[in-house]
Amino acid sequence: MQVFATPKLKHVDITSDFWKRYRELVVKEVLPYQWQVMNDEADIAIADDPQNNGQDKNSHAVANLKIAAGEMAGHHYGFPFQDTDVYKWLEAAAYSFSYQPNADLKTITDNLIELIAKAQDEDGYLSTYFQIDAPERKFKRLQQSHELYTMGHYIEAGVAYYQATGNQKALDIATRMADCIDRNFGLEEGKIPGYDGHPEIELALARLYEATDDQKYLDLAHYFLNQRGQDPAFFEKQIALDGDSVDRDLIPGMRDFTREYYLAGEPIADQKVPHGHAVRVVYLCTGMAYVARYTRDAALLAACDRFWNDIVKRQMYITGNIGQTTTGEAVTYDYDLPNDTDYGETCASVGMSFFAKQMLNIRAKGEYADVLEKELFNGAISGMALDGKHFFYVNPLEADPAASKGNPGKSHVLTHRADWFGCACCPANLARLITSVDQYLYTVTDDTILSHQFISNDAQFEDGVELNQSNNFPWNGEIHYDVKNPNGKSFKLGIRIPSWSKEFGLEINGEVKTLPVEDGFIYLDVSDKTVTIDLSLDMRVKFMRANNRDSADFGKVAIQRGPIVYAAEQADNKAPLWSYEVDTKTKPSYAYNADLLNGVGVVKVSADKVELDGTDADLYTEDNEQASEQVEMTLVPYYAWANREDGQMRVWLNK
Amino acid sequence: MQVFATPKLKHVDITSDFWKRYRELVVKEVLPYQWQVMNDEADIAIADDPQNNGQDKNSHAVANLKIAAGEMAGHHYGFPFQDTDVYKWLEAAAYSFSYQPNADLKTITDNLIELIAKAQDEDGYLSTYFQIDAPERKFKRLQQSHELYTMGHYIEAGVAYYQATGNQKALDIATRMADCIDRNFGLEEGKIPGYDGHPEIELALARLYEATDDQKYLDLAHYFLNQRGQDPAFFEKQIALDGDSVDRDLIPGMRDFTREYYLAGEPIADQKVPHGHAVRVVYLCTGMAYVARYTRDAALLAACDRFWNDIVKRQMYITGNIGQTTTGEAVTYDYDLPNDTDYGETCASVGMSFFAKQMLNIRAKGEYADVLEKELFNGAISGMALDGKHFFYVNPLEADPAASKGNPGKSHVLTHRADWFGCACCPANLARLITSVDQYLYTVTDDTILSHQFISNDAQFEDGVELNQSNNFPWNGEIHYDVKNPNGKSFKLGIRIPSWSKEFGLEINGEVKTLPVEDGFIYLDVSDKTVTIDLSLDMRVKFMRANNRDSADFGKVAIQRGPIVYAAEQADNKAPLWSYEVDTKTKPSYAYNADLLNGVGVVKVSADKVELDGTDADLYTEDNEQASEQVEMTLVPYYAWANREDGQMRVWLNK
Repeated sequence: MQVFATPKLKHVDITSDFWKRYRELVVKEVLPYQWQVMNDEADIAIADDPQNNGQDKNSHAVANLKIAAGEMAGHHYGFPFQDTDVYKWLEAAAYSFSYQPNADLKTITDNLIELIAKAQDEDGYLSTYFQIDAPERKFKRLQQSHELYTMGHYIEAGVAYYQATGNQKALDIATRMADCIDRNFGLEEGKIPGYDGHPEIELALARLYEATDDQKYLDLAHYFLNQRGQDPAFFEKQIALDGDSVDRDLIPGMRDFTREYYLAGEPIADQKVPHGHAVRVVYLCTGMAYVARYTRDAALLAACDRFWNDIVKRQMYITGNIGQTTTGEAVTYDYDLPNDTDYGETCASVGMSFFAKQMLNIRAKGEYADVLEKELFNGAISGMALDGKHFFYVNPLEADPAASKGNPGKSHVLTHRADWFGCACCPANLARLITSVDQYLYTVTDDTILSHQFISNDAQFEDGVELNQSNNFPWNGEIHYDVKNPNGKSFKLGIRIPSWSKEFGLEINGEVKTLPVEDGFIYLDVSDKTVTIDLSLDMRVKFMRANNRDSADFGKVAIQRGPIVYAAEQADNKAPLWSYEVDTKTKPSYAYNADLLNGVGVVKVSADKVELDGTDADLYTEDNEQASEQVEMTLVPYYAWANREDGQMRVWLNK
Repeated sequence: MQVFATPKLKHVDITSDFWKRYRELVVKEVLPYQWQVMNDEADIAIADDPQNNGQDKNSHAVANLKIAAGEMAGHHYGFPFQDTDVYKWLEAAAYSFSYQPNADLKTITDNLIELIAKAQDEDGYLSTYFQIDAPERKFKRLQQSHELYTMGHYIEAGVAYYQATGNQKALDIATRMADCIDRNFGLEEGKIPGYDGHPEIELALARLYEATDDQKYLDLAHYFLNQRGQDPAFFEKQIALDGDSVDRDLIPGMRDFTREYYLAGEPIADQKVPHGHAVRVVYLCTGMAYVARYTRDAALLAACDRFWNDIVKRQMYITGNIGQTTTGEAVTYDYDLPNDTDYGETCASVGMSFFAKQMLNIRAKGEYADVLEKELFNGAISGMALDGKHFFYVNPLEADPAASKGNPGKSHVLTHRADWFGCACCPANLARLITSVDQYLYTVTDDTILSHQFISNDAQFEDGVELNQSNNFPWNGEIHYDVKNPNGKSFKLGIRIPSWSKEFGLEINGEVKTLPVEDGFIYLDVSDKTVTIDLSLDMRVKFMRANNRDSADFGKVAIQRGPIVYAAEQADNKAPLWSYEVDTKTKPSYAYNADLLNGVGVVKVSADKVELDGTDADLYTEDNEQASEQVEMTLVPYYAWANREDGQMRVWLNK
C-alpha cells in the first residue's frame, strides 16, 4: 500500500467549456435557488415530488437553525437530518469561491456560520431536531437519528469553508462538534459503544484530521469503523431503551430494515459484499478508504477492495448509477440491474466519486479514475437539469411516462426533474461535487503526478511546476499538455489511458512515442523545463454489452463514445423506443450540435423499427412475421436527457 | 343480445384423465387439508408466506363462526372476510358430491350448515368480525368491511349446497342474508345508498335469483351495479362518519387506494377500462354479465364488452393471469405486462373463468371459451401444487429465487407454493372451480348445445340426448363425439374451434366434412338418432409472440401447444435461463412423459446457450463476441412448474 505525503498541488483552474458551464451555473442559478428554497422563499411545486408525502413547506432548513439559535420560535420541521441541506450548500458555496469569488454570497455564508455557531450547544452538539423538539433523546436512537451524519456534514462544510476563506469560527464549530462526539462515543466506561445508522462521520473526521493534523480525529474515525457491527444488536438495544413503540420512531419504517441494510450486521472485516442503502454503502466506503490510507489498517483496505470490486463489477449501472431498488433506496444483489425499476440515486453517484478519489489516493490504478469519470460525465450530473433548478433523485436507465403513472412499482421513476424534494439530499450534494471538481483531477504522490481526468485545466504545483491541459473533451479526444518545469525538477507524470480507449496515439514534444500502459496509466519521466504531450484517445462510437450474468441487459446494446453513455429519447425518436432493433453492423455517425441541449455530441445509429400491431389485434399470436422499416435512431448523452418534453428514454436498446 | 332459457343440461360426468386426477385430488387431499387448516389443526409453516404479517394461527375461520354462534368464547381473528374461506370450501365440497358422494364429508358439511345457521343473526346478518367485535359498526365502513362480499360468498355456497344436497336450511340462510341486505341497502329513505368495496354480492344475488326465481334478488343485484360510483365519495363519507382515524381502519392501507381501485370512481357505464384490484374487476364483471343477461341492460352489457376487450386484448398474460402489480394486487395499464414483478393472483384467474362462462351465456363466441380454456389449463390450476397441499397466490411468468430473495420489488414472487396464506382467498377458490368444472363445458340455448371445452365427458340432456366426448386432451387433439338422440330431436350442435387451431380436420359419421367457422364455432344440425364426430385439432407446437405494444415480451417467444402454455425450468435446463436464445427455425419436438409431474407433454426446442462471462470480467465491454453452444431446451406445462426443486422459471424466452 502506498501512503502519500501531503499533496503538492497548489491550485487548479478549470478551463474546460463543459465544466465551466456547470460550475458557473451552480454559482449563478443553483446556489441562489437552493438558498431561496432552504429559506422557504422559492415558488416551487414540491407536490410534484413522489418522495414528498404531503410536505407543505419548501424546506424550513434555515428556520430550524434559527429556532435552535433562539432567533425564532417554533418547532423543527422536516427530517431529523434537515440541517444537512444547509451544510452541503455551504460546502458547495465554499468551493465556488476558489473560481468565482462573490462578496454577496460570502456575506450570506459568513452570516450563516454565525448562525450555526449560535445554534450549536455549549458542549458542541448540533442537530436542530433534537435541540428543538427532543433534547432528552440525543444520541439515543442512532439507527434513525442521523445525528453523527448531520454533524459529519457540517464538519465537511466547516473544513471546506475554513480552507476556502480562512474563517476560523467555521473550523472551530467543527472541532467542537468532533470533540463532543469524542466525549460521547467509544468503548470507555460511560461512553456509547455505538455508531450512526448512516455513515458519514467517518469520512468527515478523516477530513478534519487532514485539516487539523490532530490524531484524535483520525482515531475517532477509526473507532467508528472498527466498532460498526461488533454488537449487531446495538441499534435494537438502543430502541428498546428509548421506547420500542412505532410512534417513537424518528423516521417511519426505518426500523423495518435489516441490520445488513445499515451495514452493521457484523464487523466490516467480515462483511463480504456491501448490503443495504446505496448511499450508506458509498459513504462508508469513502470513510474506510480514507482511514485505511492513514492508519494502514490492512483489514479495512481489504474491505475497500472487496466492496469496490463488488460494486464496480457486479452492481453498477453503465452510467455509474448505484442502487437497484426503491425499497430502502438500496443495492440488491450481484448482476441484478433492472433498468426500469432502479433507483440510481444522485447522491450515490456523488458518493461513489468520493470513494473513487480516495481509492486513487491509495493506489495508482486507472480503474478508479475510470469510475470517477463515469460518474462525473453520466450518473452524477444527470441529477441536475441544464437550467440548474430541477433535479433527479432517481436516475433510471429506462423510463416511460405511462409506466411511471400507471405501474406503482415504477412510480418512483420521474420522467422530468423535480423542483425540490421532501428529502432534499441530492441537489446540494451534486452542487458540492461540481464546485469542487478541480480537486478530482490530480493525485499527487512524493514523486508522481497522476493526471487522470481529461477536463481542461491549468494546474500549479509547488516548485513552479505547471500543467496546462487543453482539449475539447468529452466531445473530442485530442488531449494536449504543456508542462512547465522551470526549476528542472525531476518527477514522474502519469497520464491515464481510459479503459474505453484501448487504442491511443502519443506524441511527446512532437515525436511519436510508444509507452506501456501500467494499471491504466502511462508514465513519463519529466526533467526538462518544458514538455508538450499530445494524446489521441479513441473516440469511436462503441456498442457496449453487459456481462451476460446480468439478465436485464442480455441481448441489448448501449451506446458509448469516450466516457459519455448515450440515451435514446422520445423527443428524437418516435415512440415506443422498444420497437427499435439496433443494427450493430452499420457504423454509427457522430456530430457535435452546439444548438442542442447546451451543446452535445449526437450519435445516430441504424435500426429496424418494427411496425406496431393494432390495439385491437390479438394480444398473442403465432404469426411471427412483423413488418419493419430501416430508420436512423438519434441518441443524446444520458446526462442531458429529460431536458425537453416528457417522454420515453432508454439506455439499453434492442439489438 | 341472445337471452337463453333455463339450460337443459341434466348432468355431466367428467371422464378426462387430466381433470379426474384434479377432481379426485380435491376430494382426497385438498378438502380434508383445508378443513384441517381452517380448524387450526394443520401443521403448517405459515411464516413462509410473504402475505402473512406475523400471523400466529393457521386460520381461525371455523372458530370465528363458533364464537359468533355462542359455542366458544373469544375474539375474532384474521381478516374481516375470514368467513369466506369456509364458504368457498363449503361450495367446493357441495360440487364434489356430484361426482364423488362422501358420507363423512357430508356429515361435516351438514354440521357446518347448522353452525352457520346458529351464527347468523336473527335479522339474517352474518359477518363474524362485526358480530363478535364490532356490532355497532355493521355496514358503516363498506370500503373495507367486505360484509356484502362475505355474505355473497355464503349465498353462492348456500345455493350450491342446496342444489347438490337439497338441504333447505342452506338455502334459507342465503335468502335470509339477502333479505337482510335488501332491507338495508337501496335508494329508499332510511336505507344505505351504497355498495360493497369488493364486488361479489352482485353475482351471488344473481345466482340466488336463478335458484329461487325471486325477482327481488335480481333487482337488488341490479341496484348494486347501477348505484356503484353514482356518489364517488360514498366510501369517504362513510369513513368520516365511522371515524376517520387510521386506527379505525379495518384493513391497514386500504384507505390509500383510489376510488378507481374500488371501481367506484364513476358509474360503471362511464368507466372506460377496468381499474384497480384484479379480483374486484373480474368479480364485478361476472356480476355485470349475469345481471345484463337477465335484465337486458344494454349499458351494462356494453360495459361487459368494454372490460372484456380491454382485459383480454391488452392486460392478460398469455397464461390467462391478470393483475400486473403487487401494489394493491392490481391491474395497471394497457400492454404493461412485466413478467417478473407481476401478480397474476390465482383468484383473478378463477374469477376470469366465471366472467368467461357468463359471457358465453350471453353470446356464442369462441373467444370467451378460448379464455376459459386458457384459465382452466394454465393460470388457474397453476395455483395448486400437484400434491394438493401447496398453493400459489401470485403466479409469475418469470421467477428466480435470487431475485425473490434479493430484490424487494420481487419479494411477492414465491418460487415454491406455500402451505397456506394469511389472506387465504385462493386455495378454496380454486377448489370450487375444479369441483365444478363439469358446469363449464356446455352452454345450452333454446335450440343449440354449445360444446366449447375438450374435457372428456358424458353429458346427459333432457329428451334423452347424450353427448359422449372422448379424447386424451390436452396431450392429444383427436376429439371424438358420440351423440345419442334416441327421440330424433332436432337441434344444433356447436363445437368450438379454438383460436390456437386455425387448421382442423372434421369427420361426421366417418365422412370428411368442411364446415365454416362462425365466431369460433362450427355448427351441425342434429336430427339422426346417433351421430359420430371426429375433430382433429392442430396440436403442433407454436412459437407465440406478444402484440409488440407490450414492451416486456418484445423480441421474445413463448411456447404453446394446444391450450397449454409452456415454461422452462431450472430443473430441466442449466441456469441462467436468460442465457438461452431459442432457434425458432428448428422444429420443436413433443413427447408425452407419463412419469413426469403426474404425466405431462414435454416440449424440446433448439436453442443457443451463451457461454457465461466470468464473475471478475468487466461488467460492460465493447467486445460483442460471445461464445455459445447449441443445446436442447426442455419445457414443461406452466401449470406444473415449481413442483420440483426451487429454481428459475421463464415463460417468455429470448429469441
